Amino acid sequence: MTKQEKFYPEAQRLGEMGLENFAPYLMNRIIGRYNAALSSEMTKIGLTTPQMRSLAVLSVIDGILIRELAVYAVVQQSTLSRALEALDTTGLVRRVSDENDSRATRLFITDAGREVYERLWPHMSKASDAMFKGINDTERRAFVGSLQTILRNIRKHNF
Amino acid sequence: MTKQEKFYPEAQRLGEMGLENFAPYLMNRIIGRYNAALSSEMTKIGLTTPQMRSLAVLSVIDGILIRELAVYAVVQQSTLSRALEALDTTGLVRRVSDENDSRATRLFITDAGREVYERLWPHMSKASDAMFKGINDTERRAFVGSLQTILRNIRKHNF
Repeated sequence: MTKQEKFYPEAQRLGEMGLENFAPYLMNRIIGRYNAALSSEMTKIGLTTPQMRSLAVLSVIDGILIRELAVYAVVQQSTLSRALEALDTTGLVRRVSDENDSRATRLFITDAGREVYERLWPHMSKASDAMFKGINDTERRAFVGSLQTILRNIRKHNF
Repeated sequence: MTKQEKFYPEAQRLGEMGLENFAPYLMNRIIGRYNAALSSEMTKIGLTTPQMRSLAVLSVIDGILIRELAVYAVVQQSTLSRALEALDTTGLVRRVSDENDSRATRLFITDAGREVYERLWPHMSKASDAMFKGINDTERRAFVGSLQTILRNIRKHNF
């Protein structure tokens, strides 16, 4: 202990604060459960996590570039490109060359894509609501507000 | 819109609430950045994400079973087993058969493992603190309290 405190005297160590007070640990556990809760529904519909996230994001912000979608969906661009190829083949998204930059690709969700997403959304919404049992509206708003501040603090893009 | 509302009239849709008000989306973005921020440090030390999380968890709760560590570290048990094999080979953890169940393996962090973890922790701590810029202590405590409630709401294990 003494040796460790000598090296990093300023930072409270994980053992002292406890895992259950370390926010990244808690968020990681929560997101792991959220993804697991949705995985059976995704499998039924035949989608992977990157595909589900792509449809969810495009249902809100259509016509963005692949590199932008990669940030929103938190998926590596190479993984995302393959996921989108499959969604294009099955007619759930359209990939369109950008007017100003032919090397850049914009993504559009199709009507069929929206229909698939509409089947997933109730499960996403339910999985999210399950989180907030026993948390009142005021606390929930404060919590989401903190998440928004945190994302602004650490994101590398201006969105 | 009318058609969609007919199918799921009760749930506010993602487009209406906005991505930036959907807590799982925000947490996913945040955890993605946190992991990315640590990845260069992990690579320098020669650890993967499952290995880093294993050392972090074992630094707090030593001697647990692989299946318990898999829950704490949010890593598939098969992936985790391989990660732990490598950590055992390099002497950072010890795998010990459980006294009561020879098929079950308990994990112990070694002194060398603690030393490696001690080099990582300042970066984990810094990445976590960077999140809370502009969030005061009261808000931070409330936020972590909400995370704890959420994890209790949705976890499948009693820890």
